[in-house]
Parts: sequence; structure tokens; C-alpha cells
Amino acid sequence: MTKKYVYDFLEGNKDMRNLLGGKGANLAEMTNLGLSVPPGFTITTEACNRYYDKNEKLWEELLNEVREHIKTTEEKLNKKFSDTENPLLFSVRSGAVISMPGMMDTILNLGLNDESVIGLANSTGNERFAFDSYRRFIQMFSDVAMEIPKVHFDTALDNMKEDRKAELDTDLTAEDLKQLVSEYKEIYKEETGHDFPQDPIVQLEHSIEAVFKSWNNPRAKVYRKLNGIDDSLGTAVNVQSMVFGNMGENSGTGVAFSRNPATGENKLFGEYLMNAQGEDVVAGIRTPHEIIALHEEMPEVYDEFLATAEKLENHYKDMQDLEFTIEKGKLYILQTRNGKRTTQAALNIAVDLVEEGLISKEEALLRIEPLSLNQLLHHTFDEKQLQSAELITKGLAASPGAASGKMYFHAHDAVEAAKNGEKVILVRQETSPEDIEGMVTAEGILTARGGMTSHAAVVARGMGKCCVAGASDIVVDEISKVMRTSKYVLHEGDYISLNGSDGSIYHGEIKKVEPTLSGNFEKFMSWADEIRDMGIRTNADTPRDAKQALAFGAEGIGLTRTEHMFFDENRIPIVREMILSKTLEQRQKALEELRPMQEKDFYEIYKVMGEKSVTTRLLDPPLHEFLPTKKEDIEALAKKMNLTFDEVNDTVNDLKEVNPMLGHRGCRLAVTYPEIYRMQARAIITAALKLKQEGINVTPEIMIPLIGDLKELKYVKAEIVEEINSVFEEFNSNVEYKIGTMIEVPRAALLADEIAKEADFFSFGTNDMTQMTFGFSRDDAGKFLTDYEEKKIYPRSPFEEIDVDGVGKLLEIATEGGRKTNPDIHLGICGEHGGDPKSIEFCYSTGLDYVSCSPYRVPIARLTAAQAKVKKDRNIK
Amino acid sequence: MTKKYVYDFLEGNKDMRNLLGGKGANLAEMTNLGLSVPPGFTITTEACNRYYDKNEKLWEELLNEVREHIKTTEEKLNKKFSDTENPLLFSVRSGAVISMPGMMDTILNLGLNDESVIGLANSTGNERFAFDSYRRFIQMFSDVAMEIPKVHFDTALDNMKEDRKAELDTDLTAEDLKQLVSEYKEIYKEETGHDFPQDPIVQLEHSIEAVFKSWNNPRAKVYRKLNGIDDSLGTAVNVQSMVFGNMGENSGTGVAFSRNPATGENKLFGEYLMNAQGEDVVAGIRTPHEIIALHEEMPEVYDEFLATAEKLENHYKDMQDLEFTIEKGKLYILQTRNGKRTTQAALNIAVDLVEEGLISKEEALLRIEPLSLNQLLHHTFDEKQLQSAELITKGLAASPGAASGKMYFHAHDAVEAAKNGEKVILVRQETSPEDIEGMVTAEGILTARGGMTSHAAVVARGMGKCCVAGASDIVVDEISKVMRTSKYVLHEGDYISLNGSDGSIYHGEIKKVEPTLSGNFEKFMSWADEIRDMGIRTNADTPRDAKQALAFGAEGIGLTRTEHMFFDENRIPIVREMILSKTLEQRQKALEELRPMQEKDFYEIYKVMGEKSVTTRLLDPPLHEFLPTKKEDIEALAKKMNLTFDEVNDTVNDLKEVNPMLGHRGCRLAVTYPEIYRMQARAIITAALKLKQEGINVTPEIMIPLIGDLKELKYVKAEIVEEINSVFEEFNSNVEYKIGTMIEVPRAALLADEIAKEADFFSFGTNDMTQMTFGFSRDDAGKFLTDYEEKKIYPRSPFEEIDVDGVGKLLEIATEGGRKTNPDIHLGICGEHGGDPKSIEFCYSTGLDYVSCSPYRVPIARLTAAQAKVKKDRNIK
Repeated sequence: MTKKYVYDFLEGNKDMRNLLGGKGANLAEMTNLGLSVPPGFTITTEACNRYYDKNEKLWEELLNEVREHIKTTEEKLNKKFSDTENPLLFSVRSGAVISMPGMMDTILNLGLNDESVIGLANSTGNERFAFDSYRRFIQMFSDVAMEIPKVHFDTALDNMKEDRKAELDTDLTAEDLKQLVSEYKEIYKEETGHDFPQDPIVQLEHSIEAVFKSWNNPRAKVYRKLNGIDDSLGTAVNVQSMVFGNMGENSGTGVAFSRNPATGENKLFGEYLMNAQGEDVVAGIRTPHEIIALHEEMPEVYDEFLATAEKLENHYKDMQDLEFTIEKGKLYILQTRNGKRTTQAALNIAVDLVEEGLISKEEALLRIEPLSLNQLLHHTFDEKQLQSAELITKGLAASPGAASGKMYFHAHDAVEAAKNGEKVILVRQETSPEDIEGMVTAEGILTARGGMTSHAAVVARGMGKCCVAGASDIVVDEISKVMRTSKYVLHEGDYISLNGSDGSIYHGEIKKVEPTLSGNFEKFMSWADEIRDMGIRTNADTPRDAKQALAFGAEGIGLTRTEHMFFDENRIPIVREMILSKTLEQRQKALEELRPMQEKDFYEIYKVMGEKSVTTRLLDPPLHEFLPTKKEDIEALAKKMNLTFDEVNDTVNDLKEVNPMLGHRGCRLAVTYPEIYRMQARAIITAALKLKQEGINVTPEIMIPLIGDLKELKYVKAEIVEEINSVFEEFNSNVEYKIGTMIEVPRAALLADEIAKEADFFSFGTNDMTQMTFGFSRDDAGKFLTDYEEKKIYPRSPFEEIDVDGVGKLLEIATEGGRKTNPDIHLGICGEHGGDPKSIEFCYSTGLDYVSCSPYRVPIARLTAAQAKVKKDRNIK
Repeated sequence: MTKKYVYDFLEGNKDMRNLLGGKGANLAEMTNLGLSVPPGFTITTEACNRYYDKNEKLWEELLNEVREHIKTTEEKLNKKFSDTENPLLFSVRSGAVISMPGMMDTILNLGLNDESVIGLANSTGNERFAFDSYRRFIQMFSDVAMEIPKVHFDTALDNMKEDRKAELDTDLTAEDLKQLVSEYKEIYKEETGHDFPQDPIVQLEHSIEAVFKSWNNPRAKVYRKLNGIDDSLGTAVNVQSMVFGNMGENSGTGVAFSRNPATGENKLFGEYLMNAQGEDVVAGIRTPHEIIALHEEMPEVYDEFLATAEKLENHYKDMQDLEFTIEKGKLYILQTRNGKRTTQAALNIAVDLVEEGLISKEEALLRIEPLSLNQLLHHTFDEKQLQSAELITKGLAASPGAASGKMYFHAHDAVEAAKNGEKVILVRQETSPEDIEGMVTAEGILTARGGMTSHAAVVARGMGKCCVAGASDIVVDEISKVMRTSKYVLHEGDYISLNGSDGSIYHGEIKKVEPTLSGNFEKFMSWADEIRDMGIRTNADTPRDAKQALAFGAEGIGLTRTEHMFFDENRIPIVREMILSKTLEQRQKALEELRPMQEKDFYEIYKVMGEKSVTTRLLDPPLHEFLPTKKEDIEALAKKMNLTFDEVNDTVNDLKEVNPMLGHRGCRLAVTYPEIYRMQARAIITAALKLKQEGINVTPEIMIPLIGDLKELKYVKAEIVEEINSVFEEFNSNVEYKIGTMIEVPRAALLADEIAKEADFFSFGTNDMTQMTFGFSRDDAGKFLTDYEEKKIYPRSPFEEIDVDGVGKLLEIATEGGRKTNPDIHLGICGEHGGDPKSIEFCYSTGLDYVSCSPYRVPIARLTAAQAKVKKDRNIK
């Protein structure tokens, strides 16, 4: 038996996407639902593949099958293909499995030739319509199937209009159009060397081949590569009998959604035009009517359409995006598909569908792309203003949101300007902890350097603040306070706008739209919480962040970075004194001054979090980050501390490191200066003891960063435990506490089985682990990672999406090793990956107990975790 | 049956070290060989352990056993312990399994008291001798067993001498000494509150306890910790009957080696003094005679001693270090052990012993500590001058050898000074590739920063040049050209001396001794080559290095770093032009200028190496390393290149990285600028083709650094292969070649099974792998690694000795993965660990095909590889 390559719409269904393409499968489904779909047939994706296997030639058996199906269609409609009396005409459309730009556009009116055009004129009683259809067909066929530049036809049309003094196409008469047809055929002959094909079968063959060829045109190939779509999928070809919305005042055409795609409201939403074809609705010359008007104009058609939309929605269990045509009072449905919608609408629709009993909660959860929740949580730009905005360049979409303001290049200038009531954008080469105040003050942050996990990006996400990072096309001259690109030179005080959701940087100010959270959001998220079985914590360094995270549903804090607390302007002098100490006594004196401040920090965070888990990471960054680098700042510090410039400068230089990322930081500081961690441990435990007196039972989780060896952990832990025991003695009271480690150094992952013996918990610091596993500095990799992304070596930055093969392998080794020697060990992740959906799914599959992410990512993480559970239960990959 | 805790010398042998300690086992062995050893017995290490188990008290059964053995000894010698007529006296010495500083010193003459001293006077007919012995015993016992400060006794002795106007001790009369004994006993009573014990058994008990206690004194404990010696080994106690070399002119004492310990010459070597005790030989008041003089003085004794030495050497199959005493014409052997010797001597002795048929070649190979070969390959300081040299401080022993010269703080100053004939030491905060010329010129290199694998250390080892790195006590002020420590301020032009073998930095100039390689060296190394089954290659960047390595026995080059070739003063301007290029065309033009130079480099290295393997690593360091950083240099470059200062400066700043180690370098450069590697590949292949025309068949091995992913390797490899194929076409000829990768990024090790599919070989870059696996920057870790070493977290820097647990695990994963998917893959190591014996042993156990190290390490690696094979065959851990 020969293989079947062509399917009548009656022969297919919606589950045959792979064979019939998305469009073909839906046309078949609707046909079988008994809807009024113009008859036709689909040539399969297998035919496309065979076409490529067989030297790119159509083969006889295929054409025979096509002819068979033409015949069937003729019989159904009682018309003849390209007949001179009552001609059957076809549209030809591509239909890939996954919709894809670059594929062939539609060819309408196929079958028209010098004779059938007369037949069409006769059968419709409208000669002008017939020749207009013929002219359009020649143009479309030439453009789409034969690649003749459109401009030739446009010029001929324009010349004709000028000659006839016609303003609109519709001002041309049937005679004018007849002449245009002749001219078009001339153009065709000049460009191809052949006459325009009069044989409708030849027209169809060319069109089918054109669809097949468009599968491998450069644009489609690039798109597939970019989106990881398999080259072997192939495209189907849909051949469908024509219906006409432009056959008079009882004809028309339109598009509609079964619900409102902007709000989700359960009400038909769309527009239509009478006596028009689809392209007229799009062209915008006549203003379409709202769909509700059809209720007045053609009540029966409207009711049928409404019923159809409902039927399709119930059938597909999702909001539908429909195309329809009315030909002489009869409704035809040309297309249906799941409609695109805003996140707000998607959420409302999903919740409504559950409440209408159409889908389950699990299904609803799967319907929302977790990252799209960002649209609900952050400012966006006004769509209208955005269209006319002047794009300067793009950077990395480091932290979502929209922001406009005056540029300032230094944190203190930004702070000053903000005090004067200005809206400020902080623009830096890259930010450092010294810039925190300026970042807090600014509407948004722009950096020229640094990637998705650079300081600016991490801190901005933590604050829920808009940030565009690593905009490598701009030069930031902080000294002259100028930002340059090849085209722009902008100065301090000039307005710019940032879209942190896509990385765009605009010149000038753009109006913003406030985010709104509907009641459905709470409901939807509560379903996520019901279903998920992985914990969601947050990274929060301040009571404010902690409150925000709680509001977003965080169940605890997975990471409090104590160093951010050190940069407060009241504290930094003491921190510097501590660093500049030459003796243990001096250092302890400074630490003793810091202690009550740290204790207050922890007390306040614990107070906000109640008895929820709070993991506090002890001091992590290299000490030089706390020292000033500018000459005048060093001078001021020296003066203040009664030291010489040289003394301070020597220390600054001595602490400088070639690769600070791999330097004297984390627990290494505690190996050299155990008194620092002792002070922090004392502050943490004292805070917990004070809360205990207030009846709140906190179980502090103390986390030691950058551990690489069991002996190192033992040494540091012993110091901490000794300090804690003396606090217990002094208070004559105690609290439960846990001591765990970050697992971020590759060696720690490799030796996790050893390290777990002394750790109550592991928290995977996948930022640093990614840096060390790849050998990529996150501050520097931005420059070359774009090349890696372009060349598809790493399609997505490993700082955004966890590298399952490398870093993931270490996570698995560590998880397995850790649980082997310490079955009670609690495992989580606190790197930036904790807020990335794909990475969260990986964490879930690895069996982590929780993920921790910045407050604004908490809802995203909750939803992703729920989806991961549903997918696991349903065995969806 | 009760356990036996005491062994007569007749009851033991040399293999009972663990029970009897080293000294006791040897005394027993000699006794059983029939040598003239004063009788005695050994209290076992088990007794020591039991002493600690039983509340640190001697127990009755033990003392009974001791008494038994005293009796046996009395019977053998026909004397009575502490007799008033002819007293038997004992020496008491500690005897650990492994000789250890901090253990108890000797107590001589035990058994003397107010009565037996008379007996000794009678039996020897020498009252002065008897009281002198008594005085010495009281002092030793008080000091060693009772911890009474020596100074009391010394003061008493000095006062007596002053009073008697005696210059030497020997000027004191018997009467004087009698009085001194009274005074000593007074001191004893004052200090302890008890009378000096008259009961000899009590004396012995105290002494035995003192030995046991010394096992756990702080110095011994620290030493054991430092050297990883098990605390549970315990020490034995040797109790031996006294013989006296100071009983007149037919008595004497001496020490001798069975061969010359400085040269290895097979001739008795040592010295003796007549009428003297051991301490007199050491004290240096009288000049001892060379041992040969004994031949004249007491021919029979000499002959007996010579025969004894020979017998012991044949028995122990190694050069012996002997102590002897002659008492009234009779020879006694008091100790034998394998003698310490210079490397030169060790080598000659080992070779001689093989040729004398005493030991096998394998045994000879095991006798030489591989690192000790450094003594043969490098300059050393004159021992005499060294003793009076003024030590400034110590740094890391980064590259062995000895060097003296005037300090210069800048490479160009060093070069100028050397042109004027000065000997120069280059002193830098840390070196960079820009300093190469200065390093070549200098006698030695000193840096304040950086560890064992810092730039200075690596390059210096490569050159075989003396280097002390990371001397953290010194401050190097390059601007003022001053080097400071807390005690010294030294200026440009001042003389210093460096010992690169132990890290010492001396003030002033010290005479040096040339290294000499004897004929035995060649012979010995040829045995190593016969036996070993792992390849030894070298890291060499220049034909000169390559020649040196060949002379040292390298079998190929495992690493040629192409970047070092870029720093030549004729090339650097072109390299900079290449880097500053704004377009591909500009860059290609600059590369085209570099190409013939690179081709010449490779041609010359291949020419030296003949058909031996040469692995060339393509460009590795970040580009900014090639650009100047000083303002005036940037100005000069800008002027030369017709660019503005700002243009050059912007590029310099733009290329600067926060963590250059993890930045845009290695194959990442080739992903961005594939043309760079293409140029290098072309140069390599062209050089090989030219040699082919001369009849030399070179198989270039092209090594791609910093690979982290299979796709990355595929991309870079495809570019290289395309270039190679066009060279083949142009020449209409071809050569075999291999393309492999460094495995240094942890991710590469984890995914080695994938990467191996496209790699002909792997070379483990364990320097970078250590950096990334630990998260330690080798340039910065020096500062805190000392804390880690002190606190025993990492007893030895992982940059010196490969970290078996972490980095080693990655090596094993990579080796296993690589061989699984590519059984033919060739595996080697080219990190600095390739020259470290412990690391080489690990590489061998992991199954690598070769190690590659700097030329001066090649002999060390050859020997280590041979030893590893022997150990494996003999199952020695």
C-alpha cells in the first residue's frame, strides 16, 4: 500500500498536529465538530520531508492524491475547480507543527485564470470583484510562490491610480482592473520568462512547492536554530476552498476572541467589517465595528458565531482566537486557536475556567508561564507612548519593571537629586556595595558592565527595582558624567527610560502603568501552594525586604547577607576601623562596637519573620570592598582615624586582589580572623534569646560561606560554637540553632559526603559555583557570553539558567553525598537560579527541600514549583 | 603469662623497631652480629603506652623486669650496679621508632652516688675522673630528668673556675670537683626540696619516667603533628652499661661514616679523640684527629673498627654512621645507623652499592629523595659564608638555586644594569609577562606577593632560575625603589642573596658553589628510565628551554605556551595593533605580520626536538596582559599607532577585568576572534610542512586551552581544521596532526566523556583546575594559605602538591570519562604539579600517560616515575 500524503479535513483531528501541522489539525477538528468550515484538505509534513529526500521534486503519486481530493471537494461544493461557469477557488497556506515566522504567506483565489475569472464574474454577478480577485491572485502568486519583487506590482497599481485620478483602490473600475491584470501578467512574464500559468493544477503545484521551499528559507532556518526546533519536523500545506466576505452587503469578515484577551472578561471580544476581505480589516482604511454590533446587523449569524465560539472554547478548554467570514449571509469559520492574552487575562481566564468546571486547578497552574507574573508585579510602560519612543540600545534585562528619570553617574549625586524631588536613574560602569544608597533612591539602574548576576542585577532584583545591566554598547564616563553610544552623547540630568523586562534603554521620559494584583492572583497562588511540595524561601537582607517577601508568600528566608548591613553610613567607619586594626585587641574593640548593631539587624528580621526559618550567612566579601579607593576618600578616612595617608593606602593596596572572587573572603576571613564570625554568631544568638524572652521561638540557621573542606568547617564551627556556648552561659538560657554551609566551591560539592557530617544544612550557592565550574567571572563574562549565545555554544547564560550538565552534576554529587552521610540534612539553593523557572524545575528534580529567591521572584518560584509537581505527577517532560 | 616489657640486647633485632625503637633495634642487631656492644637492655614502646594508660605511673612488674635485666647485665660484666668496689654504671637514652627532636637527651653515669663514686675512683685508679663523672651525672640528671635549669650548675662551675683561676674544666682538681659535687647536690635540694637520690634504682626509675614523659612534651607533640607521626607509637628506653673513653691515653671516642658522606667515596670518614668522652668531640676545645690517624696510633683497634664498619655496611646494605668508644684499648660500638649524606654522595653510594652487588637498581632508585636532585642541578651557597650570613626574612622556596646581586625594582633597570656587567636581583611586588626580559637577565627573582605557582615562580622554574616568591614580610615600594621590612630598609643597588631552595633572603653577597653532575648521575638516571613506564615531557617555550630539557632527559614537550613568544620587543607592537584593531580586516593584517614570526618559533622548537612530541597551547592569557598600563606607555603607544590617548586608554580600560583569571581568555578569545587561533594553527602546520621538506616528520599536537564544553571545542576545532586544510591545499602536502584540549575548567572534567569524543588528547592543567576547584586565586591565596597551613586545614599548599581528594577526584572522573568514550585518548598533565614528586605519584596511580614539567624538574620527574613503578611492583604505599 502506498503511503497516504493528503488528508481531507474530515479525516483529521486536533491531535494530528505532527502530521497535519497546527492549522490543518484545527481545521480538521472544527470540520468534524460539524462547524461550518469551507471544505479542503491538508498535505502532510511527511510529504514535505519526502520532498526534501527526493531531490526537491513533487512526485506523481502525490499529485494524483491531490487531484483526488480536489475532486472530492468539487463534489462537496458542487463546483468545478477553475470552472468557467461557477469556479471553485482555493487558498493555499503553510502549516508547521509549531507556528514559525519565515514560513510562506497565504495565496488566495488560486484557480483564477483568463477564463475562470469570467466564470467568477458570472457566478457572483460582479465583474469588478472577479477582476480584482484575479489581480490580487497574480500579485500574491508572483510574490509568494515566484519571489517576484512586490514593488513592480505596486508601481503598476500606483501608476494606474494616478492615471485614473483614483484615490483608493476601490475607485478603480472593472475595466481598470482588467487592464491591470494584463499589466500584471506582463510583469510576470518579464520577471520569469514565462507566461502566467493558466492551468490551475500548475498554479497549485507551484504553490505547494513554494510552501515546501519556505521550510528551508534562511529566515525559517535561523528561527528554528534559535528556538531549538527540529529541522526534520517539516511543514504541512493546507488547501481550502475560498469563501468571500466581499460579495456584497450580506457578506463580511472578522476576528474575535471568545473572551477579552486584555482582561480575561468572559465576553466575546473582536471586530468585523461587512463587504470586505481579511486584508481590509488589517489595512485599517475602514474602521471595523465591534463584534457586538453584528448582533444588530445579522442577529442569526451573530448567534451562530457566539454558539460556535462557546462550543470551541468548551472543546479546547481555553479561550479561542477565531477568524470568520460571512458569504452571502452564511457564516464560515476559517481558523481557531488558543488566543494570546496578557498575563492579567491569562490568570483571570484560568481561574474562571476552573470555576466554570472546564479545567482542573492543576491544568490552570500549567496555563500560566511563571515569568509572565512579572507583568503583574512591576510597572510597565504605556503601550502608546512606547511606540513612538526612541530606542538608544539594549542591555540585559536584569531586573523587570519600567523606570524613567534623570541620569546620575554617582550614588551620592543620585541621592542628592532625589532629595530635591527628582526622579533618578543611576548610571554606572558597574555598581559596588558602596552604591547601595544610590540604588535605593533611584527609579532604575543602568550599568555598562556585568551580567545577569552582577552586583547591580542581584541587588536590583532583591529590591524589585528596574535594572538594565551590561549594556555593552554604551560607554559610561563617570568622571565627565557622560554616557556615550555611537549615536548619542547624554549628560547628567538628561532623561532616559529603562525597560528592565527586555533590556531596552530609551531616550526621554515614558509614561508608566501601575501594576495591579486582582483577587484572582491570591486565589491562583493559593492553588500553587496547595499543590507544590517544595519550599519557597526568599533572599532578604532587611526587614523591609523580608516584609515584601512575606507578602509575596515566602515561607522563610534562605539567605540574609550580613555584609549589606555593614555599608550603612553609621557603620562603615567602624567596619573600616576593624579592617585597619593592627592587633587582635584593636579589631575586637571595633567588632564590639558593631555587635549591638548587628544584633539589632537580626532582631528586627526575626521579628518580621516570626518563627519562620531564617538562614543568615556570615560575612562573605573580601575586606577591601569596605575600604574606599579614591584618593580623597582615603585622605578623609586617614584624617578621621588619625592615621597617615600612607598607612591607610598601604592597607588598601595590600588588600587589593588580582582575582577577588577567588581571594581572601568567606570563611577564609574567619580562618584568619575568627573573631569576626564570633561577633556575628554572638549577635545572632543574642537576638534569638531576646525574642525568646518575648515568647517568640526562633531557631537561627547560621550559614558559613565558601567552605571547601571538612577540616575548614570544623575549625570555623568550633569557634562559633564556643562563642554561642558562652552566650548561653551569660544568659543562663539557650535556643536551638543550626549550623550549615554554602556549597559553592566545586571542591565542597565533590567532598559533600565528608562535609555533611558536620553540617545541619547545605545551601547551594549556584552563582559562585557557576563561576568556578565554568571559570567564568560573572562580572566579566557578559562581554564574551553574547558570542557564546550567538554561536549556540551556551544558548542561555549559565548565570540565568542553571547548567544542568556541569553545575547540575555537582549539585547531584553533593545532594547524594550529603544525604548519604547525613540523612537529615536540609538542602536548598540560594543562588540567583532560585528564581529562574527552568532552574527551579531542575532543583525540584534533584530533590532539594527548598529554593530561595529575591522577594519579587517568590510568586514565580511558587508557581514553578507547583507546575513541577504537576508535571512530575503527569509525567510531562 | 604476663607481657614482656623489657628485652636484653641479645633478644632483639633490627626489624623490631616498632617495639624497641630505632636505637634499641640497632643495638640488639649489632649485639647479635657479635660486635662489641656494651651490654644492656631496652624497655619497649608498649611499656610507654601502658605508662600513659595507667595514670602515668611505673608499675611493680615493670620494675621487677628491669631489676632482672640489671642482674643479667651485672653477671655478664662481673660488676655490680652502683657497687662500692667496681661499680656498674648505665647510660639511659630515649629511643623512638622515628627519630624525633624534643625527646629526652642522654643521661650518663647513672648509678653514681656518694659511695659508688669512691668505687669508681678505686676501680679506675683515677679520683679526679670519678668525681668529674659524678658531677656530670648530677647535672645531667637534674637537667634532663628533673628539669632543673642548667644555669644554676653552670654558674656554680664558673664561680669555682674563677675562684681557682682555672681556665678550662680540666684545670680543676679532684678536690675542686668533690666540692662542686657538694654544691650541685645543694642546688638539687633547693630546687626539688629533696636530697639527690642515692639509691641507684630510684635514679633509674626517675630516668625511665623522664623518657616516657618526654614523649608527650610540647616540642615532641608539635613535631609529631607537623610530620603526621602517630601519637600512639610511644618511645622505648635504652639502658646500657657505660664504657669510658676518658680512662687515659689508651682510651678514646669517635664518630665515623663507612663512606664519605659529602662525596660518597668508599673510604672510612670520621674523627676521634683519645682520652675523651663524646661531648668533648662535639665541644671543639680539642681538635679531633682524622680517623686514619688511628691506624698509626692503635692499629689493631683501627683494623677492628674498619672490619666492623664494613660488616655493618654489608649487613645494612647502606652507608653507616657509627659511634665508638675505646676503653683501655678495647673497642666498643655504641651506635650505628644509616648515615645522612649529600645528594651527590647519596647518588654515588647508591650507584656503587649496585655495582658492588649489595643492592638492586630498584633499591638504589628508592634511596634518593627525588627533590634532593635539585642540589645537583642548581647553585648552592658556600656553607661557611652562609653560617655568618645575615638573614632578612624568608619567603616561599619558589625555584631552587642560590643567587646574589644588586636589587633592581624594574625590569628595564635590571636589563640596563646587567648590560653594565652588574649581577642583578629583580625585586617586584609580583611579576607579570612584561617583566620577562628582566627575569631573563637577573641572577634571581624576589617577589612580595604570589604563591608557588605565581607568574614569577612558574617562569623562574621554567628557566631554572633562583626565585623566592611571596615574601609577605617585605614591603616592595616600586616607585621609591625601596624594599622594607620591620628591621631593614634596602635601596636599589644594595646587595642581597636568595636561596630559592629554602626561601631565605640574606643581606649582602654570599659565595656560590657550582653544581656538578658526576658520571654516576647519567648512569643512575638511565636506570630510572629503564624501569619507569610513564612518559616525562617538559614545559618549554623556547628552543633554549627545549635544549635544556632534552639534556635533562625530556622525551617531548607537553606544553609550549605561545603567549610568551608574544612579548618579544619586536612583536609586542604588532600584538598591540592586533588587539586595538577595530575591524576584522585590521586584526587580520596584524595577525598576518605575526604569522611568520610564530612560524619561525615553532620551526625552531621542532628542529630542536626532532621527531619527539611537541604540544603547543594556543593563546591563553587575556588580551589586556599585552597592553601597557602606565600613562606614559599608553601615550607612547597611541603616538606610535596614530591613535588618541583616549582611544588606546578606552581599550585598555575596556579589556580590564575584575577577575581576569575567570575572564575573556583561552579558547574564549577564539570564540570571539577565531582568526587568532587560525593564524597560530597555520604557523604550526606550515612549520611542520617545512620540516617535512627537510626530512623531519613532525606530528604537531595543537592544544586548546580552557575548554568547558563539547560544542565549544567543536566550534574552535572546526575553525582550526578548516585553516589547516587550506594550508595543506596551498602546499599540496600534508602532515599528521593532533588536536586536544586542556582539562582545567572543572566543568571540562565533569563532561570529559563528552569532550573526549572530539579530542585526540587531554592535558590536565592542574594549576587552573586547583584555582577553580578550591576557588583560590593563585596570585592572592599566598596571603591566607599560610593560615590554612598553620591550622592544619591544608597542611601543604594545593598549588604545590596536588589535592588528591578534590582536584584528584576531577582528574579521575575525567580520566575515566575520557577513556570510556575515546579509548585511544592520550592523557598527560602540564600543570606545575607535573614536577612535584607526590603529585607525580598520584598521576601515575591515576594512569596518566605522561607528566610534563619545567626542564629543571625533568630528572626529578624521571626518578619519581621510576620510584612509583617500583613501589607499585613491590606494593609499597
